[in-house]
Order: sequence, then C-alpha cells, then structure tokens
Amino acid sequence: LRVRVEILGVGTELLLGQIANTNARWMSEELAGVGVDVEHHQVVGDNLDRIVAAMALSASRADVVVVTGGLGPTPDDITRDALASLLDTAMVRDPSIEEFLRHRFVELGRPMPEANLRQADVPIGAHVIMPRLGSAPGLVADAAGARLYLLPGVPAEMREMMTSTVLPELAGRAGARIVSRVLRCAEIGESRVAEILDDLFHASANPSVAYLASDGEVKVRLTAKAATDAEATLLIGPLLEAVRARLGDAVFTTADESLEQVVGRRLEEAGRHIAIAESLTGGGVATRLTRVPGASRYFRGAAVVYSAEAKRDVLGVSQATLDGPGAVSEACAREMAGNVRRLFDADVGLSLTGAAGPDAHAGAPAGTVWIGLDAGDERRARGLRVSGGRERVRRLAGLAALDLVRRHLEGRSLPGSDVHA
Amino acid sequence: LRVRVEILGVGTELLLGQIANTNARWMSEELAGVGVDVEHHQVVGDNLDRIVAAMALSASRADVVVVTGGLGPTPDDITRDALASLLDTAMVRDPSIEEFLRHRFVELGRPMPEANLRQADVPIGAHVIMPRLGSAPGLVADAAGARLYLLPGVPAEMREMMTSTVLPELAGRAGARIVSRVLRCAEIGESRVAEILDDLFHASANPSVAYLASDGEVKVRLTAKAATDAEATLLIGPLLEAVRARLGDAVFTTADESLEQVVGRRLEEAGRHIAIAESLTGGGVATRLTRVPGASRYFRGAAVVYSAEAKRDVLGVSQATLDGPGAVSEACAREMAGNVRRLFDADVGLSLTGAAGPDAHAGAPAGTVWIGLDAGDERRARGLRVSGGRERVRRLAGLAALDLVRRHLEGRSLPGSDVHA
Repeated sequence: LRVRVEILGVGTELLLGQIANTNARWMSEELAGVGVDVEHHQVVGDNLDRIVAAMALSASRADVVVVTGGLGPTPDDITRDALASLLDTAMVRDPSIEEFLRHRFVELGRPMPEANLRQADVPIGAHVIMPRLGSAPGLVADAAGARLYLLPGVPAEMREMMTSTVLPELAGRAGARIVSRVLRCAEIGESRVAEILDDLFHASANPSVAYLASDGEVKVRLTAKAATDAEATLLIGPLLEAVRARLGDAVFTTADESLEQVVGRRLEEAGRHIAIAESLTGGGVATRLTRVPGASRYFRGAAVVYSAEAKRDVLGVSQATLDGPGAVSEACAREMAGNVRRLFDADVGLSLTGAAGPDAHAGAPAGTVWIGLDAGDERRARGLRVSGGRERVRRLAGLAALDLVRRHLEGRSLPGSDVHA
Repeated sequence: LRVRVEILGVGTELLLGQIANTNARWMSEELAGVGVDVEHHQVVGDNLDRIVAAMALSASRADVVVVTGGLGPTPDDITRDALASLLDTAMVRDPSIEEFLRHRFVELGRPMPEANLRQADVPIGAHVIMPRLGSAPGLVADAAGARLYLLPGVPAEMREMMTSTVLPELAGRAGARIVSRVLRCAEIGESRVAEILDDLFHASANPSVAYLASDGEVKVRLTAKAATDAEATLLIGPLLEAVRARLGDAVFTTADESLEQVVGRRLEEAGRHIAIAESLTGGGVATRLTRVPGASRYFRGAAVVYSAEAKRDVLGVSQATLDGPGAVSEACAREMAGNVRRLFDADVGLSLTGAAGPDAHAGAPAGTVWIGLDAGDERRARGLRVSGGRERVRRLAGLAALDLVRRHLEGRSLPGSDVHA
C-alpha cells in the first residue's frame, strides 16, 4: 500500500532564515524508514490564510499531512486556529488539557499566565495527543480525505510525538519496510559515477539507485522496499555487489562510514601508526583523523609546517629542495612524508603541500597539490590539480591524501598524477 | 514596493532526509537582508510533473521564484526540462555553454562524458547565468507573471550566483534599502546576551535586534530599513554603540568577520608570529587560522602532539609533568605553549590539551580543557569545562583558544578559569 506523506512547517523564523528546517530533514528520514513516500515539503509563516491554504493543498494531494509549529501559547501560535478554519468548525476548551497545564505550572512553581490556556483549545472533531515533553498538545484530524497530524515545532517535542504516535501509526498503514545501503567513493566525479551506473539507474526501480555528491565524495544509495527487512536486504544484495564491482577501488565503504573512520580502522587492524606533515591543509587532515574517538590508537601526531623555515628547521626538509624544486613539489612532499614518519616514530608518514590560493605559492599555480606517503618499504607521491576556491582545494587535497593511505593499506591501485614535477 | 519571493528546492535527497535544506535557510536570510518578503518554501523531488506543478504554483503567487537543484549533468537532473515544460517550449543546445564545458574538462585534464552536454541545453526564451564556480549554468526566465531564477543546488555555486546576480537584481527591485551590522561575541551564552539586551530587543523595531547562537558564538544582528543606505546606516549607529558597550570585551568584531580573521589581523598589525601546540583539537585551531588567505604572514606552524610520547619527544614536555599533573593539566598546557613558541621561533605560543571524550583521558573527565599562551613577557593559562559531545568540546576549546590570543593582543581582560589544577 502506497502512503503519500507531506510535511508542512509553520513559522516566520524559517522564512527569515533564522533557523534551518531541521525538523523536515529528521521527519523525512524517519518517514522513509517506515516505508512511506514524502513527495513535498512546504513552509509558511505565521499567517492564518496562508496556513489554511497550505494545509488544504497538502490534504488535497497527500494521504497524511504532518504539520509542525505554531502550537505554543503566544499570540503568533495560530496553527490550531488554522485547523478549525480548515475544518470549518469552532474551538472548544478541553478540560483535561486545562488541568494538565495548571498542574504543570504548579510543578514548575510558577503562576500560569492565563494566555497559556490557548493551548487547551481544540477544534471540534480533532483528537488530542498529550505531550510527554513540554506543554504543547498535538492534534489529529481528518480533512479532505487526508489525515492531519499537528505537532509542536520544538524539535525534542516533535520527535517525541513522532516516535510515540505518528511513526507507529504510519508504519502500520504502509505495511512495507525500507532498507538502504550507502556506498561512498572518493576521487571520482559524480558524472563519472552516473556514466558507470547509468543502465542500473534506469533499469532498477526496486531497489532504486540515487547519487549524491558532497565535499568531494560521491555517495551512491541503494534503497529496497519489501514486506520485511530481511526481504528488502535480500533484494539489495545483488545490486550492491554489481555497483561495488563497477566502481572498483574508488569505493571506500559500503557501510556509510566516513573516510577517516575507514582509514583509522585499517591502521588499527594493521597495528600501524601514522604521522602527518601538512602545509597546504594547515592541520585539516589531522583534525579529520582525530574526529574519530580512539584515534590515539593509530595517530601519533602532525607537524603543520606552513613556512619554508618551519619545513627546514622543524621537519628537516633540505635547503636544496626548497631552493630547487621548491616547497610545492614532489621532492618536498616525499621529504616531508619520510621526515615526519621518523620525527614521530610512526610506521606511515603522510604529507601535503600545495598552493591553496587565491595566489600562486612557491612558483606553483593555485590548485597545485602534492601528496606524499612513506611507509618505509613503500613510497608514493601524487600530484593533483584542483579547481575552485581555497577551501575546496584544501578539502579535496585532504580527501585525496586520506584515500592514498586507504589504498596503500588495502593494497589497491592509485589514481594517476595530474601534475608532473 | 513589495516584492514577494518564493524558494523552491528540487531534490529527492531532501525528501528522503539525507540532507537538510540549508540552501533555503541561507537564501531566506540573504533575501530578508535586501528587503524582499519570502512567504513560502517548497521542496519537491526529482519528478518532472511535480517540479512543473510546483514552479507553476510558486509563479502564480510570487513575483520572483528562486529554484535550486537539478541542474547537474546526471539523468535525475531535470529542472531544465521542467522549465521548458512550464514555458511550453523546446530546448536548444547553447554553443557557448558547450564550449565552456569542453574547455573546463581540458583544464581538468579529463575526458568529458558526453552526458555532461545536457548542461548546455537551454529552454527557448530563457537566459543563461554563466557559473564562476563549478560547471552548472543558471537560468532566468519569465512565466505566469513571475521571474524564475534556476540555480545549482551545490551550496557554494548557488551562493555565488545569488551574490553576483540574483540579490543585486532583487535589491534594485525592492527599492528600500536594508543595512545590517553584525556583532560577534565569543565566550558568552545566548541567554546571557538576551538578558543584557532584553530592553533594546523589545524597544526597537527599526533598527531591529536579533540573536543567533552558532558554533559557540553569539551573533547579534542589527537591521535598519530606510530609503537610502546612508539613512539606514545613520539609524543603526547609536544602537550599535549601545550594544557594543553593554557586551564589552566579549565582542570580537562589529564587522561580521570570523574570529580567525580578527586574530590574524591583530597579529599582522603587531608584526608578530604565532605557533600552536594542539593535542585535544588535533590541528583544528591551525586549520581555522589557515582558512584565511595570507595566513603565512603571521602563522609559523603547529605541532599536533596527540600521544604522550609525541608531547615528550617532539615538543619536549617534561616526563615529570606527564607523570605528575599529567597530559591534561595547566602545567602541561604551559610547557606546550612555551616549547612550541621556541620550536617554531615564534613570538606567541598557543596550546590546547584536554579530554574531548567520550571517555576520560589522562585522569581528566571528558570536557576538561586547558589552554596555554606564552608570549615571552606574558604567560597565561586557562581551564574550561565544556559539556556536550566530542565535536562540541573540540570546537568550543578552539574558539576559547583563539579568543585568548585576541584578548592578549588587544590587552583585554580574560574570562576566569572554570577548572583549578
């Protein structure tokens, strides 16, 4: 059974950009998890006519409408009034909510402003969801062939009512389970992924295939729908293998982990420690690696050597290299990797040097990146040319560097160098 | 003149909750800044009929519609097709976009997948906004009495086109001028800021006062609306001074700069160089400082000493300190600051050590942070206790460390220590 759900956010603060609509994101993810289809999000401000019109539009095209916001006690909280208007009915004060509110203020040890009793007003024909958090009751009503759930806009209160009431009711209605698997790839463009998977994308509706590019990575999400989790997982299996085989060494995980988690796990499995020498990225690669709790089990430390003097005096890069090929060169990347490995007594040394921009640096144009890896027995260096602004160059260089370590630890092939010394 | 703008996000990933609609938040804030009214947000998936219907609905009730997403090269990018359908027209391949795309791939040194030429297709009657970032051109067209702007969904590319093209055009249309000034504060909570400014918040409608807490900072935005920029600026002046005076040393800028920009500028003005020793933050403070172009004029480098061995062997922290007060202590922070200053031959040494969590570290509970500053003639150390998860502890520690440098360079008072050795 297909159940179409629509999410309607109410609040002028959303339209002014004072807050992001994180409620819609969370609800969408949870709703996908119980197998219902979300086809639209809407946001309107605290304006009666526009809230009523938006509710009516949602009810006309969806089976279920989840409305958040505007159930508080202040004068701009008018979602209750909008529901009464949509239902063309009056509001009646609910004595059990009134008692709940009075009791709550006694517990808080504060007098209750009379205006708070607005929260006890219920349109005739609507049902109440009593809150376990906060003071705003939710409402449920049927209109124009759809069921409407009105929930508070405070995220914790909304989540509590979604989890305890709305999601179980919808899961029962949908009768299907959704299972997703995410493959993540580095060092491959979204358009290249699309080209490789084009026929699967078009041929397969269940499981479905979707791509998402972000921060230099491409995520490929496979989603299957079936009567049970086990059936959905079975449906996904062959497609997951096919996608993994086609994308090859570019796939760093099929478990939706970050690249730093994968690199950390591989280092720990191999019982090896890493140290990093960063110029270009200013410590960004070390910061990423240490986002993962327990990174001290495989990360020794890093030398951020931003000036030529620091490269020479702190990390021991030779004056000949700095005067010759320069600070942005394969030779410098190689020396940095070997020297930082020895300085921190690590097994693997990783290095990054380059010109982040906007200006050229040490004779290299903005976007030039050199990455070095020194594992004692194996030494690699790789040049990249990254387009875009300073932050993009630094981010993609960091991703490529971590991916170089992953490929080394997994014995995989390397993408070629874009730059030659 | 009142200009009503509507924001339409296209992308199934939004409806699945894989990403939050941060584009709508950013655009709403910027649109409010140029004095136009945003009355609705909509989101639809990558479905031709629904995109066309959503565009038609937006165009029927707004003067301007900004559509984001679905302009990429992959088969699910169909916003161009939807515009052609709305305009009831055909698409024609634009030779100048084709040339731009081919040229771009030559620069990247990669073959261009033929599918990328989809990005050169333009509905007849639409105009092109050439991208300065990325490869997706924007489109502009008039339909149903409204002007539609189609922008890429990648945030950086969308922002570039908004800033260079859409916002200036809309500001011209709206007539009234909006001037905003943003004060940014560190090391003070949003509720404390609200308490200090409460009467101004309620008393003043033009200029208006708004707060926004994010990443440990509080931004106070003063916004004035007038016929000219000069009048709006005059309106803001006295309120800006009043707010600045009340918030005192906590204000690090009245020019909406980042803390790292302020610290960098102060270091450069003083002709001083900084070096950083990081344990807890794993390189995050150095990464922040080097986000600013030209950071090499005042930043020498950093030692990320994540293990006790690295603290001792690379940075020369004494075994007595590591065995006694331990790696998370005032003594260790002081030694790290002094030693990193000497190691990098810098004027100012900054250090961070602590327990990011989730577990205790070196005998200190998660959330314990020690920051040290050594400027030769002046030495400071400060303890903090930060609640929340690992990323929050690291972020707030980094903010407090940079703010310690700012207060030192500006000769300002320090907030007290929360922790005692």
